[in-house]
Amino acid sequence: MQKLLVRSFAISLDGYGAGPGQSLENPLGIRGTELMEWFFNTRVWRRMHAQEDGGEAGVDDAVAARGFEGIGAWILGRNMFGPVRGPWPDDGWRGWWGDEPPYHTPVFVLTHHARAPLTMAGGTEFRFVTEGIHAALEQARAAAAGRDVRLGGGVATIRQYRRAGLIDELHLALRPVLLGSGEQLFKDLDLRALGYECASQLAGERATHVFLRRRTDPP
Amino acid sequence: MQKLLVRSFAISLDGYGAGPGQSLENPLGIRGTELMEWFFNTRVWRRMHAQEDGGEAGVDDAVAARGFEGIGAWILGRNMFGPVRGPWPDDGWRGWWGDEPPYHTPVFVLTHHARAPLTMAGGTEFRFVTEGIHAALEQARAAAAGRDVRLGGGVATIRQYRRAGLIDELHLALRPVLLGSGEQLFKDLDLRALGYECASQLAGERATHVFLRRRTDPP
Repeated sequence: MQKLLVRSFAISLDGYGAGPGQSLENPLGIRGTELMEWFFNTRVWRRMHAQEDGGEAGVDDAVAARGFEGIGAWILGRNMFGPVRGPWPDDGWRGWWGDEPPYHTPVFVLTHHARAPLTMAGGTEFRFVTEGIHAALEQARAAAAGRDVRLGGGVATIRQYRRAGLIDELHLALRPVLLGSGEQLFKDLDLRALGYECASQLAGERATHVFLRRRTDPP
Repeated sequence: MQKLLVRSFAISLDGYGAGPGQSLENPLGIRGTELMEWFFNTRVWRRMHAQEDGGEAGVDDAVAARGFEGIGAWILGRNMFGPVRGPWPDDGWRGWWGDEPPYHTPVFVLTHHARAPLTMAGGTEFRFVTEGIHAALEQARAAAAGRDVRLGGGVATIRQYRRAGLIDELHLALRPVLLGSGEQLFKDLDLRALGYECASQLAGERATHVFLRRRTDPP
């Protein structure tokens, strides 16, 4: 069965999935990069973003690599695609990731403002969906052709899909950092009542990986 | 220097330090025992509460044991002492822990209602403080005679002391469980702005142990 998955989504000890004040300089908000430090040190990230060898081949690396396996399409919130707000002024913004983004699949970007698809190197195509989260999921499932769909984020997008009960599995990377403010993943969201449970956890070098799934028994 | 310490305080993945609906049947609130399962399996707990050998001698056990070392006095919120609310009807309630509580030191219980001290077996004496958190800390420091003071909880009490900037170190045991509701430790509390940082983390068998301390650099 085709699943909708959240993978490698980092949250701080105090529950923030992004810092405040997202901008061109701070894609993950102020101090948000502290969330991602577990990933920056992996071999997966080095190969992907810096196109170089090196990085560490430990638990964090293995978990990050697994997160990319079997994925046939991605869904991103608009803020995760870029810092531009409101109507697109032009086609200048092509994502945070350079000419060859790390997706290598169709990527469905949720937005209120229509825009033509954007074909990038390496098999990534950004498609802009204005009809909401259900339409994006339907399109992503069709594009994934039997493989799973990964929901990249950010916090608000994950919260929307989760409230709608559409996420099958969530892998969170708990980072031992305090952000103090920003976007909280769990705020006013009773995951237990929504039917989720912690299936397992795994200690990585720079994060604790927790795997949530739908409970099979009644809530 | 005499420190005020929080040790072995468990929180759920979604940030709860206690479940809802604390009562005689559910001292930690509904499903709150899920928070403590990392502790129930340790040798420390078995010796302490069940007066028996057995239990597991791993990381969780070592961390739990360290939490009791060098402590000369404890401070507890009233709800952690018991489920009785309002004025004490009589001296019948003597804590959750039987005749020989695990403290073996003076224990200062915060309450709005005066009550005579209660001497238990094994060196524990419950003393009831009606003059607030600063008075309790002052009395606990004097009683501890140079050793540290441990703040046992619960959530509301820790939040009060932390907001006042009085806690030197916090060791949290992060449990991979979802409580969904209850008392949140971090809610509306910007620990970073209050001057704390994560000093280290340690993977245990059933919890991830995170050690917070005051930052030495300016916030």
